[in-house]
Amino acid sequence: MAKKAMRIGIVAISSPFNPKTADRVQRLAASIFPENPPELVVHPNSFLTHGHFAGPDSARIDAFLEIANDPEIDALWFARGGYGACRVAEAALRGLEPAAGEKVYLGYSDAGVMLAALYGQGYRVAHGPMCQDIVRTDGDAAVARALNWLVNADPGTLEPSLDGSTPAAAFNMITLSQILGTSLQPDLTAHVIMLEEISEYLYKIDRTMHHVTANPGIRKAAGIRLGRCSDMLENDTDFGMTAEEIVRDWCERSGISYLGTADIGHDADNRIVPFGI
Amino acid sequence: MAKKAMRIGIVAISSPFNPKTADRVQRLAASIFPENPPELVVHPNSFLTHGHFAGPDSARIDAFLEIANDPEIDALWFARGGYGACRVAEAALRGLEPAAGEKVYLGYSDAGVMLAALYGQGYRVAHGPMCQDIVRTDGDAAVARALNWLVNADPGTLEPSLDGSTPAAAFNMITLSQILGTSLQPDLTAHVIMLEEISEYLYKIDRTMHHVTANPGIRKAAGIRLGRCSDMLENDTDFGMTAEEIVRDWCERSGISYLGTADIGHDADNRIVPFGI
Repeated sequence: MAKKAMRIGIVAISSPFNPKTADRVQRLAASIFPENPPELVVHPNSFLTHGHFAGPDSARIDAFLEIANDPEIDALWFARGGYGACRVAEAALRGLEPAAGEKVYLGYSDAGVMLAALYGQGYRVAHGPMCQDIVRTDGDAAVARALNWLVNADPGTLEPSLDGSTPAAAFNMITLSQILGTSLQPDLTAHVIMLEEISEYLYKIDRTMHHVTANPGIRKAAGIRLGRCSDMLENDTDFGMTAEEIVRDWCERSGISYLGTADIGHDADNRIVPFGI
Repeated sequence: MAKKAMRIGIVAISSPFNPKTADRVQRLAASIFPENPPELVVHPNSFLTHGHFAGPDSARIDAFLEIANDPEIDALWFARGGYGACRVAEAALRGLEPAAGEKVYLGYSDAGVMLAALYGQGYRVAHGPMCQDIVRTDGDAAVARALNWLVNADPGTLEPSLDGSTPAAAFNMITLSQILGTSLQPDLTAHVIMLEEISEYLYKIDRTMHHVTANPGIRKAAGIRLGRCSDMLENDTDFGMTAEEIVRDWCERSGISYLGTADIGHDADNRIVPFGI
């Protein structure tokens, strides 16, 4: 008897997703799991466009909650990042029902706002590739990694420094910065916090790392690891430190352990970081 | 008998200042107050260059403290913004001596980090033009306004909505955002908070306003006023809201009163906002 196929709900809560990319992800999933492909359920609101967003806030909240609260769906996979999660996070959280506690939530970048908020409320979340990553160079590998983790919990998909006993969390740097001191900030005491960034000036990395490491909650972390900082913008004047030197410096100043690099980033190599242990 | 000339200490704690601009400010001060010009004491470290900064952190901390702790100096005027205040704020605060409590501190933009930190410790600070503003179009007017406030406490220099009974504070938006949830965040309960921004995408204004208005301390404010958001960057897709609509929206969502516009910004019209009453 065939095992019941896993059902993965896909929802865009930030910028709009598009049907062509959704099709590519569907075809990839079918080719990776020919025997028993997961059923990918893309919420139709994900294809809406409202300025910057995949539909107005209310449509994105509805889409998130319809997937999250559906007891027939095993996982909620964020379709993509962009911008918009902070506009819906509080309302989305208020609407969660018991079935939302039975699934896992996967995404990164702007979706990190939802990961933070959900993790803070005890939900199972992970930082890892999203559907939209399929359009990157070698993007199939990123999306296959996400699927292998969602469907098989394949340990080969995990960020390699995870030791199975120290809790972890991962964020885009500015995304974490801009929830600090709000109700969306989760308790990361004793966690290894992995940070990555894209398309920023090094002086802004420096400013953001001051903010992150000056927060009393973050200072209780077990340490910080630095993922990739890619496509950095050119400073007018040479900043004089690399991103890793900046992070190491702020860790030292704030008494947080700097633990080395992390295999995460806005790229096809982005590995999975389940939050917690 | 001639009144003793006021002594104003000038120090760059962020990006480097330069001697030519300092001379222009000196000449302007002499022309505005021909009878009894204030003595402008520019700390020589302000002209250092260390990558992005007016010298290494230690040189900027020293410069700040030498001016702040000098009992013969009546006011500390930040030479300019840029970036770097957050790197020196905590150490600078630790080094303050009693004479630092006898003067007033004036600046804005990146210097807002120091204004916040100082105000949080009970020092007298104000948001207003800095020396470097003299290079703007009509920049003489900005610098003359700052001098008229420093020397004469001229009420005509003040932001016009100030009513003399409601405490106020003013910040660059992202500067405030990136001290939230840290020891540098001052108590702004019952304050009118004025915010301004420059060279940002509207979606980042939106994200930052979420952050600011989601902070429990900021939610205790009497309200928010919006200064000028100038030289905004072009979004890929039209954001669909103006900066004022964004601020009004987040105020509404978070239960903070939106009080209208404020006459502050990164421009020559930037008026003075003394913190507190």
